[in-house]
Order: sequence, then structure tokens, then C-alpha cells
Amino acid sequence: MSSIVNCAAYADGKRVANIELNEIGQTLTQTDQFVWIGLHEPSEELLSQVQREFGLHELAVEDAHRAHQRPKLEPYGDTFFIVLRTAQINNQQRRIDFGETHFFLGNNFIVTVRHGSSLSYTEVRNRCESTPQLLRKGPGFALYAVMDAIVDQYFPVIDALVEELEELEEKIFNETYKRETTAQIYNLKRQLLAVKHAVSPLTDICNRLMRFDSEIIQEDTRPYFRDVYDHSVRINEMIDNTRELLTTALEANFSLISISQNEISKKFAGWAAIIGVPTMIAGIYGMNFSFMPELNWHYGYPFALALTLGSCLTLYLIFKRSGWL
Amino acid sequence: MSSIVNCAAYADGKRVANIELNEIGQTLTQTDQFVWIGLHEPSEELLSQVQREFGLHELAVEDAHRAHQRPKLEPYGDTFFIVLRTAQINNQQRRIDFGETHFFLGNNFIVTVRHGSSLSYTEVRNRCESTPQLLRKGPGFALYAVMDAIVDQYFPVIDALVEELEELEEKIFNETYKRETTAQIYNLKRQLLAVKHAVSPLTDICNRLMRFDSEIIQEDTRPYFRDVYDHSVRINEMIDNTRELLTTALEANFSLISISQNEISKKFAGWAAIIGVPTMIAGIYGMNFSFMPELNWHYGYPFALALTLGSCLTLYLIFKRSGWL
Amino acid sequence: MSSIVNCAAYADGKRVANIELNEIGQTLTQTDQFVWIGLHEPSEELLSQVQREFGLHELAVEDAHRAHQRPKLEPYGDTFFIVLRTAQINNQQRRIDFGETHFFLGNNFIVTVRHGSSLSYTEVRNRCESTPQLLRKGPGFALYAVMDAIVDQYFPVIDALVEELEELEEKIFNETYKRETTAQIYNLKRQLLAVKHAVSPLTDICNRLMRFDSEIIQEDTRPYFRDVYDHSVRINEMIDNTRELLTTALEANFSLISISQNEISKKFAGWAAIIGVPTMIAGIYGMNFSFMPELNWHYGYPFALALTLGSCLTLYLIFKRSGWL
Amino acid sequence: MSSIVNCAAYADGKRVANIELNEIGQTLTQTDQFVWIGLHEPSEELLSQVQREFGLHELAVEDAHRAHQRPKLEPYGDTFFIVLRTAQINNQQRRIDFGETHFFLGNNFIVTVRHGSSLSYTEVRNRCESTPQLLRKGPGFALYAVMDAIVDQYFPVIDALVEELEELEEKIFNETYKRETTAQIYNLKRQLLAVKHAVSPLTDICNRLMRFDSEIIQEDTRPYFRDVYDHSVRINEMIDNTRELLTTALEANFSLISISQNEISKKFAGWAAIIGVPTMIAGIYGMNFSFMPELNWHYGYPFALALTLGSCLTLYLIFKRSGWL
Amino acid sequence: MSSIVNCAAYADGKRVANIELNEIGQTLTQTDQFVWIGLHEPSEELLSQVQREFGLHELAVEDAHRAHQRPKLEPYGDTFFIVLRTAQINNQQRRIDFGETHFFLGNNFIVTVRHGSSLSYTEVRNRCESTPQLLRKGPGFALYAVMDAIVDQYFPVIDALVEELEELEEKIFNETYKRETTAQIYNLKRQLLAVKHAVSPLTDICNRLMRFDSEIIQEDTRPYFRDVYDHSVRINEMIDNTRELLTTALEANFSLISISQNEISKKFAGWAAIIGVPTMIAGIYGMNFSFMPELNWHYGYPFALALTLGSCLTLYLIFKRSGWL
Repeated sequence: MSSIVNCAAYADGKRVANIELNEIGQTLTQTDQFVWIGLHEPSEELLSQVQREFGLHELAVEDAHRAHQRPKLEPYGDTFFIVLRTAQINNQQRRIDFGETHFFLGNNFIVTVRHGSSLSYTEVRNRCESTPQLLRKGPGFALYAVMDAIVDQYFPVIDALVEELEELEEKIFNETYKRETTAQIYNLKRQLLAVKHAVSPLTDICNRLMRFDSEIIQEDTRPYFRDVYDHSVRINEMIDNTRELLTTALEANFSLISISQNEISKKFAGWAAIIGVPTMIAGIYGMNFSFMPELNWHYGYPFALALTLGSCLTLYLIFKRSGWL
Repeated sequence: MSSIVNCAAYADGKRVANIELNEIGQTLTQTDQFVWIGLHEPSEELLSQVQREFGLHELAVEDAHRAHQRPKLEPYGDTFFIVLRTAQINNQQRRIDFGETHFFLGNNFIVTVRHGSSLSYTEVRNRCESTPQLLRKGPGFALYAVMDAIVDQYFPVIDALVEELEELEEKIFNETYKRETTAQIYNLKRQLLAVKHAVSPLTDICNRLMRFDSEIIQEDTRPYFRDVYDHSVRINEMIDNTRELLTTALEANFSLISISQNEISKKFAGWAAIIGVPTMIAGIYGMNFSFMPELNWHYGYPFALALTLGSCLTLYLIFKRSGWL
Repeated sequence: MSSIVNCAAYADGKRVANIELNEIGQTLTQTDQFVWIGLHEPSEELLSQVQREFGLHELAVEDAHRAHQRPKLEPYGDTFFIVLRTAQINNQQRRIDFGETHFFLGNNFIVTVRHGSSLSYTEVRNRCESTPQLLRKGPGFALYAVMDAIVDQYFPVIDALVEELEELEEKIFNETYKRETTAQIYNLKRQLLAVKHAVSPLTDICNRLMRFDSEIIQEDTRPYFRDVYDHSVRINEMIDNTRELLTTALEANFSLISISQNEISKKFAGWAAIIGVPTMIAGIYGMNFSFMPELNWHYGYPFALALTLGSCLTLYLIFKRSGWL
Repeated sequence: MSSIVNCAAYADGKRVANIELNEIGQTLTQTDQFVWIGLHEPSEELLSQVQREFGLHELAVEDAHRAHQRPKLEPYGDTFFIVLRTAQINNQQRRIDFGETHFFLGNNFIVTVRHGSSLSYTEVRNRCESTPQLLRKGPGFALYAVMDAIVDQYFPVIDALVEELEELEEKIFNETYKRETTAQIYNLKRQLLAVKHAVSPLTDICNRLMRFDSEIIQEDTRPYFRDVYDHSVRINEMIDNTRELLTTALEANFSLISISQNEISKKFAGWAAIIGVPTMIAGIYGMNFSFMPELNWHYGYPFALALTLGSCLTLYLIFKRSGWL
Repeated sequence: MSSIVNCAAYADGKRVANIELNEIGQTLTQTDQFVWIGLHEPSEELLSQVQREFGLHELAVEDAHRAHQRPKLEPYGDTFFIVLRTAQINNQQRRIDFGETHFFLGNNFIVTVRHGSSLSYTEVRNRCESTPQLLRKGPGFALYAVMDAIVDQYFPVIDALVEELEELEEKIFNETYKRETTAQIYNLKRQLLAVKHAVSPLTDICNRLMRFDSEIIQEDTRPYFRDVYDHSVRINEMIDNTRELLTTALEANFSLISISQNEISKKFAGWAAIIGVPTMIAGIYGMNFSFMPELNWHYGYPFALALTLGSCLTLYLIFKRSGWL
């Protein structure tokens, strides 16, 4: 039972008791209290116990056990089942670790179920308990507090991706073209897509929480979900922006590779000419004609060398000026 | 009549009788029972018999016979006609085999018609019969059970496509550029499109089944269709994700081919210079001038060879350092 | 008046009389009958006569005369004006011929006006007359029958385009790169766009016919339009699919041209080296130094030849193994 | 006051009087008449006089003076303010000249304000006056007549753009690759975008005019706006079609440039080999070995020449057959 | 408290008093007056004082303090919280500086909070005070006036971006291909995206202000927001237009780089042939055959030179004519 992180009853925004799982049913009968229970990768057994205590729908509980759900909000009668994806940067391995948090939200209870990589919500709970005037709004506010913490975890992730894009820009516009750059662009794209899929359903979920005409989310709690909505829209925009820039970066990279090819071709052509001309001149003076007056000149050889050097120099200057070298 | 796979009457979630086709009309008059009949590529004759027994609409029966329909849900009075596409991996031939399953769903009957590649639904029926508390919800639950089985068959298909993308990434970023890689990208695209067309209408069909204000799908069966909806959305997302990555992979492949061209050009230019310089020097000392002092030096030849080798080596080192070789 | 293909009155699904244009007004007063008249590229005069008999709106008649309309459905009071585009493959000239069919549909009449390339609807009329139990549903069913025939004409067109894509794939992945392939891709794209514009409004037209709360289309005729709707959606999907594959084919073609360039460059570089090395060796032994011991060896020349051949062979094998030749 | 092109009162579809600006107020009190006034680039003074006479909203009048508005329809109380963009081909300078026409439309008046390039609407007015049975529908019909004339002006513009695309296709698929072709593609794209921005809001404007539940546009005038709507949709489709083909043309152009590069490389490689082989053979027989039997043969030289020519010819034929030359 | 730029009470469109922060509560009780207060990067302390005076929602005030919000409109009970982004060109550093302005709008007050780069709104206030007949419409009009000023600041920004595109076109189509051009295209894209994100939510905000059925924005003020809406739509269209042209410019740039590569290859091939032919001829006459009649001709050498020159000239003319040089 170590996977129950926390289980407490709240009245008027204050924690009134830490309770055991089997006391929940009794606590729920007290209309002025609500129960907040936090689970971490619970066993099937524990989950079915929770299901019985709160009367949760079988399909939702199955989902909560299996994880690997997409973010969603599903009303089951007077209970909401909510799935969110969490993300954290794994600095050692330079990748993003994803996790999941599931919520069961009722009139007087909230159950959070954490899977995979995410921070513990103990700190969120502490912050909530320090503002009883807000927590007294009920389990809806607890939901907001955890959702807000989850969404806030995305900002450093996005910042890291934006930073990676900037590194890529640096490489693309200033350095030479390496295969690694292309592979890195591809990987950044992959990560952006992964984060996008984790975040984009959030906008719709918050939107529905803001508008639901349900007692579970009280009227004065709704502006808080608008706040989360706003953050999720911002994260989405940042991702889209980064994706669009990345696409342009890929194309720019490609343009620059082609320009590079042009430059190589020009350089090669230039040097080929500079080497080709002396070879041609030498060939001419290597012909075996009986009568070639220059060959017998005393300064024929220096003259030929000078001719060679002169033409090379001329070519060099011409190419240099026209930007081919 | 061998194409009737199974035909039974159910009461209170339990199979009460295996019935013949001509007994159906009589069975349907008993309001507490429903009939579940499974057909496999039925003949026109058989289908029209089924049509008469259940009073099905002519257009729907025509569709059910012809197959090659797109996935759809069509209400005909108080009967639903549903078409779904099934998919299975054909490992021998490394391709995806598609099939179709059609449903006629009424208040107290469900007819499934299988065409082409798909698993038999006998196992689904067995599972349903093992949970009579669910099957008693009526033919709507039987529909869910078969749809769920169909959708679940798509996951291994998608996994195989994702795996193929990963193989392609390996080839693109680590190996040399082969024509086969491009052809394989094209084929993966084609397969993704085919699966996409088979799956994407499912989202809408489930959505309508979830919301239909019809007696055929009872209220407490609807969350089950939300489950299927959720799976179909996830499959769609996985396909879109793979498609977008594939597009980027195609572009990355293209970038790397161009980088490869740059490298070839550089290598060629470098070696052309290394071969060109000795040729030029040899040409010069092959000139026939009467007066070329070096020619008569005792160490002229070794000197020329040394000059040649020295310049080649210098060029080699220069190119090596600047990454051209 | 030869452009009147057919003009008849129907009662209870059976043809009761072939009538003249000026008898129409009288026939329309009989509430149990409807008039079905088929025109082919009618003169302005004939059209205005038809207009008077049926009381059609001036704007619709103008449209029906001018042709070159886009597919649309326009209600004018209690009359519908419908424009559809027809398509047929012209095998001689390997192109698609487009035509137009306009409909005026009222409570008890239907007028079809054919322009340009399309099959005659005489056969459709015959088929309708052979099923009086369906034709008795009124002019709405006649509309369905003609629309269905028009939509069915698109399937061979699409099949021809898909076949052309397959031919292109064959060329792209198996043959060398010809300018014609690119031109053919472009032309296929152009044809797909033309068919798309002809077909895509159909989906919306059928949708409206299915849902219109109008007496003109009787309730039990609506499922038939859903059938046409379904076909038009399928045609649209096939076009979109082909377009997306064509786009990928264009990109794949481009990739393969670049790979081809790489191969040419490698081959050229390899052979340049194989020719360049003997030239260099020959140059060295063509130098005129007084003291070059090899020159006086008895086997100097065979040795030089062997050196040359040996280095050429070595290079050849190196390049062959590394895939440059 | 020369910028008042025309100002008249109409009753029952017929022009009853040419009136002065200051008589307008009086005329408007006669409920059976409407005023149609046409202005051309009016001064601020004139506009404010018109504003006073008709009681127009300050913001609309400001817009009408400044021009450079985007097409829009804005209801101000019981007056509509409509902005449309006009376009004409300027053949001398091969470009499209844009203008603007603004409308103020009330129950019993219409004001047209022309800016920039457009035809005069005098002819439209004449045509309207020749069909009093239509013009009696009121100022809404006058609006239709002018809008129709404006939209019809776009067809020759589109035709010119389509023709330019065809010229480009000719250049791309038949001629060599010039920088001008790319610049021309770019300019065509720019023009298409400009026309698109001028036309696309029209669809929405017509749609609203068709549906507005307002007395200004009488019920029997609405089908006429559907006609304009239809034309604007067609123009939009033609633009989109041209844009999509242009995009494909750009890509095809690019493919063909690359194929061209392949051909150049092949040709160069072929000729380099044909020149390189004699150079190599000549080099070999230019070596200075004491003992080279061929050198002393009587037919050594012709043999060498024959060898050279033979190998060149062989290479030429090989390259010719394999398509490299 | 220097960050309070201005704080005044208005009655009937005229400034009646400059008031202190602590007098606000009292002023708000007078129903015929409204308060307009302008803040510039206020301290947290000052903001919470303002919050108390006007009774603002905690979440909105937090947002107003933190800045870095996306443009949005959020109703909190009978108060609106609006965030807009401002933009100004920074000519020294050739970049766009963004700022933010937040509004709290109530029935009888408006608070503006400026952050970052933007002009002061003192001038806007002065203009409003000069038209008391408009300002008497209440705080809604003040909101309009400031929004209008903010939107108008975007036009010079867009003009600068369009100008930069034109500079790029000049470079792309007339000059040689520099790496800087590609980098500049990328940067322009980045700037367009930044402006797009700042402007695009404006359209929706204005739309809601135009339609809100709220007392805060009086009916006769709504057309003014339509004006701002119109400007924001125009700015959006200009950005989209520029983006689409930029994309095409990038592709055109790329095409031209490839054409350039073709030209380089052709030039190189041409000159290689012109240098290669004399080298080949010289090689032939450098062979050491005993019997080479030409070698002993008196005019052998001039003939060889003439042959060389002649073939070079012929090649030159051939290449010149076919456009390879």
C-alpha cells in the first residue's frame, strides 16, 4: 500500500484528517468535507479498492491502470475522469521523459494517479493547504492546482527545445554542413511532435472545464481553468512557432548546402584552370617538331616558365575578383 | 449455407438457443430476446433471406453484398447499417491486408457480415458470453465488442509501420544512399494513407454512436463507444505523427544526399589536384628547351620526384585538415 | 426541336403518355402525374418555351443556357435548379472530356439539360421505367437515377488516373530519369485538379438533398441520395489519395535524380582517376632529365607499363568495392 | 463638383429626374422613389455633403474617403456600407491595376464611390434603365447590377493569369532553363495572391447579402446575389487551381533543372573520357625509355594514331548508346 | 508612485479632475463620471492598491504584473481584462521591439498598464479629450482609442517587413547567391511569425468586443471596434501575403542556385574542353616515334599551333552559341 502517497479529508479548505482507504466511504457521507487522495503507479488491487470506495466506472479504472492514454476528459455520470500527460527534461540523456497523471473528480473527492516521469504533487498540496480561502472552493480547485503544476512543467521543456533550435541555427548559418546537423533537425522535429501531442488536447480539456455546467467545478473556480487554458495555448503557440522555424531552417540548411556545392564547383573549376594552363603550355613545348625556334632560344625556358606563371597569376586574379576562388 | 458462422438468440445476456434462419422472425417477436447472427462472405441469396427475416433496407443490403464500401454509419429507420474496415499484417508478403465488416443493428438483433481479411468473431462472441452482465445490455454491447476487436487489430499494424519508419531512419542517417530507401519511403507513405482512410471515419462513427439519441444504443452502453472512439483517435494520431516524421525523413534524406554530393565533389577535387600537380611538374620537365639547367643536374630527377611527392603530400595534408578528403 | 430527347408523363411509376411541349401545362394540372423531359444542348428559344411551361426562374434558365457553371444546387421558390459536371475518358486523345447536366426539379416535373460530353440518359430512363415501384416515388427518384449514373461515370475516370500514377511509379523507381516523366506528373496533377473541382461540390449537394425539408424530395427517397453522397465521398477520397501520392512521387523522383547525380559524379571521379594515374606516370617518364636510371633499364618500359596497369587495376578494384563504379 | 458622375431619382424602375445634391433630402421623403448617385474620387467636402444628405455614419464616410480598404460589408443601423475591389488588366505594362468601389445602401438610396482603376458604371446604369421591371426592385437591384459588372471584370484578369501560366508551362517543359522563368513564376504568384485578396472576401459578402433578413435587400432580389456569389466562388476556384498548378510547375521546373544538371555532368564526363584517353596514350608513347620497341616500328605512329582514334570512337559509341552523350 | 502616468475623472466627455489613487473609490460612486488611469510598469504594491480601489480579480492582476501574456480578452464578472501586444521598429538594431499593454475595463473606469516598448498614450488621451462628444460614450471609447493607436503602430512595422522582402527579391533575382541572403530570409520569417503571434488574436478580441452583449461596451461604440477589427484583419492579411511570398522566394532562390550550378558546370566543361584539346594535340606530337613525318616538316610546328588554336576557337564558338560559355 506504499503507492498511496497521501489521503486526507478537507473541510473549509483545511486538512481535518489523514484517513485510511476504508474510511473513505464514511467520510464521503459528510457533505461539508471532501477527500483528496494521491496514488503513484497503483496496483490493480489497490485501484479496484479505490473504485469501490468512490463508485468509479469500470472503464475509467481500466484506463487508469493501463496508462498510455491520450489526454482526455470523460464524464461518467457525476464523476469526471481526466488524463493529462506530464513531461520532464532528462538532462543526462538529452531527451524528454513523459509520464501521465489521471484524475477522478467528484462532488466531494479527487483522486490523482501518477504514472511514469513527473514530480510528486506533495508540494502542490502543501501550497493549497497554505491558502485555505482558495482550497475551500472544493476538489475543483485541487484539480486546478495540480493541472497548473503540470502545465508549468512544460515551460522548461519548451525552453530547452527553443534553445536547441537556436544552437541549430548557429550551426546552419555559421559552420560547415555536417550530417549530424540534419539528424539533429530530425530529432528536434520528433521531440516537438511528441510534446505537441502531449499538450494540444489540454486546450480543449480546459475549455470544457471552463464551460461545463456542472456542480463539480464551481462557478468561481472556472476563471482558474481559463488561466491553465491560457498557458496551454501559449505552449501550443510556442511549439507551432518552433516547428515552423524548424521547417524553414531545414530548407535554409538545404539552400546553404547547395550554395556550398556551387562554391566547391567554382573553386575546383578555378584551380583546375590554374593547373591546366601550365600543363598545356608544357605540353606544347614538349612537342618533338624539328623546327621549333623557341626551343633553341637561350631564354626559352625562363620565358616559358614566366609565361606559365604569368598566366596562372592572371587566372588567379580573375577568379579571385569574380569570387570563384 | 456454410457462410453462416453462428446464429443464436440471447436472453438476459445468455445464449438461449442456436436458431435457424427461418426461425428468426419468430424469435424477434419475443421482446426479451435478441438475435446475433454472424455471416462470412454470404451469397446474394442468403443475404436476401436475411433481409426478409429482419426487414432490412434494400440499399443497405446491396452495399453489404458488394463490399468495397468506405467506413460509414447509416440509419435506416430504426435500423443502423455500419461499415468498418479491418486490417491485418501479412508477414509473408510484407503488406497489409484489408477486409470489411458490415453490421445491421436493430433493437433486438445484430447481423455481422465479414468480407476479406479479418479474424473470425467467434472468440469475441465467446468473451461476450462469458460476461452475461454486460451482454444483457443488448445488441449494442455486441456491436461494441466486435468494434473493439476490430480497432485493436490496428495497433499491431501501426506498430509495424512505426517500426518500418525506424528502420528507414537507421538507413537514412547511418548508411549510404540507395534508391531502395526512397522507394521504401514511398511505399510506407502509401501504406499509411491506406490505413488512414480505413481508420479516420471511425472517429466520426463512434462519436455518433456515443451521442445518438436512439433506443438501439442504450444509455449505459455509450461510454463503451467512447472507449472505441478514444482508441481510434489514438490510432489516427499515431498515423499522423508517423506521416509527419516520414515527410521530414524524406527531406532529411534529400539533404543528406546533397551533403553526400558535396563530399564527393570535394574528394574528387582534392584527388584531382593531387594527381594534377605531378602531371604539371612532369610536363614542365618534359619540355624540349635546349637550355634547361635542371635537366643536366645530377640530382635533377630525384629532386623533381621529391618536388612532386612533396607537393602531393602538402596538398594531401591541406585537404585532410580542411575536411576535403 | 430535335434537341428534345424525350418528354413523357408518368403516373404511379409508369409512362402514361409521350407528350408535346405545349401539352405540359395541362399535364401539370393533374396532381397524380409528373413530367420528365430530357433536353440536349437546347436552343435559347426552346429553353424559354420550357421556362414558360414550367414557370422557371429567369436566372436559372440563363445559367442552363450558358453552361460552364460550377456544380451547385439552388432553390428558386418551390423549384430546385441543380448543376452537375459529367466526365468521360477520351481514349483516343488520352484526356478527360467534361460535360454538364442541369436539372430543374419541381413537385411534379423534372427537366434534364445535357451539355457537352456525357452519355445519353435514355438508358437511365429505361431502367427507371422497369422498376415502377421505385419511380412512383416521383421526380425526386428520377433525379437520383440520373445523378447516380453521372457519379458512376467518374469511377472509370478515377481508375484511369490511378493507373497512370502506377505507370509513373514504375517509371520513377525502375527507369532512368526522363524529362517526359516530370511533364507527365504535372499533367496528372492538372487532371486530378480538374476532376476534383467537378466532383467535390457533389458531396455538399447530396448532403443538402438528403436533409432538405422539402416536399420535392420525399422522405423515402432521401436514403438514395445518401448513396450518391457516399459514392461522391469515395471519389473525393480516391482523388485526394492519388494527389498525395503524386506529391510524394514528385519528391521521390527528385531524390532519385539527386542520387543519380551522385552516382554520375562518383563514376566520373573513378574513371578520371583511372585515366589520370597513367597520364601522370607517363608524364614522369617523359621528363628529359639527363640522369634517369630507369630509362636505361632494359625492362624499364614494360615495368612502367606494368606499374601503370597495376595502379589502374588497383584503383578499379578499390572503386568497385566502395561502390563508386 | 465634377466628381459627381450621375445623380438621379427613380420611381417604378424608371428615371424620373436628374437631381442636384441639395435636392436629395427632399426626394428621400417620397417613399415610392429611390436615389442613385455615382461619385468618382470625391473630395472630402463633397463626401461630407453626401453624408449630411443621407445621414451616413462618420466611420463609413472616413473609410470611403481614404480608400485602401479591404472588401467588406458593414451594417450601420439601417444603412449598409460595402467595399469592393476592382481589377483591370493594364496591357501596356503587363500588370493588374486595382481600384475600389464603395457603396452606401439604404432603403431608398444607393451611393457608389469609385477610386482608382475601374470602368465607369454609366453603362451599368443604362442597362438597368433598359429593364425597369427589374430596377423597380429598388436600390438592392442597382447594387447587384454594379457588383455583377465588377465581378465580371475579374474573368479577363483570371484568363490572362491562366494564359501566363500556360506560357510558363511551355517554357518549363520545352525550353532551356532561364533565370527569367523563375522570376516570372514568382511574379505570377504575387499577382495571384493580389487577386485572391481582392476577390476572396466577396464570397462572404454575397453570402451575407443573400441571407440578410433586412428590408434593404428585398426577398426577390436575393437570388441575384446568389448569382454574384456563384461567380465569385468560380473566380476563387480558378485562382486556387492556378496557384496549385503554379506550385507544381515550380517543383517541376526544379526537377528539370536537376535533370539538366545530370545531363551536363554526363556529357562532360563522356567528352572528358574521349579527350583523356588519347592524352594518356600519347603520354605513354612520349616516355623516354631507351628500349621501347613500338617507337622504332615503321608504322608505330599510324598505329598509335589508329589506337587513339579507335578508342575514342569506341567510347563515343558506348556513351551514345547509354545516353551519356 | 512615478509609474502612474495619468489619473483623471471624466464627466460628459470632459476631464473634470486629476485625482489621487485613494480618491478613486469615492469617485466611482458618482454614476455620471468615469475614471481613466494610465500606469507604466507598475510595482506589485501599486498594482495591489489599484486592485483594491477597483475591486479587480486576483488572477487578472497577477497577469498584469507578470507581463509576457498572449493577447486575450477575459471577462471577470462585470470587468474585462484585456491584453494586447505592441510593436515598434528599432531602427538602430534593425529589429522589432515588442511590448504589452493591459486593460482593466469596467462600467465606469479604465486602467491601462504599459510594459516594454510602446509609445505613451498621453497623446491618445489628448486626442480623446479634444472630442468630448465621442469620449462621453464612456470608458469603452477610451479603450477603442488606445487600441486603435496600438494597431496603427503595426502598419509601419509591416511596411518595414514588406520592404525587406522587396530588398530580398532584388538580391535573389539580380545578384549572386550569398549565404547572407538565406540567413536574411530566415530572419524575416522569424520576424513575421513574431508579429503574426502578436496580431492574430486581435481579430478575435475585436470580434468579441463588437458582439458582447454587455453594458461595458455601449451599443454606439461597437462600430468603432469593427474599425479596429478591420485594421487587424488587414494586418493579418499583409503578414500572410508576405509569408507566402517569402516561401516562394525561398524556393525561387533555391531554383536559381541550382540554375547557377548548371551554369558553373557548363562553363567549367566548356573551358576544360578548350584547354584539354591543345593538351591532347601537344601530347600526340610529343610522342617519340622514330617515324612521324609531321615532325620533320618545316611548317610542322606552326601547323600544330594553328591546329590547336583553330580547334580551341571552334570549340569556343560552338559553346558560345549553345550558351555553355
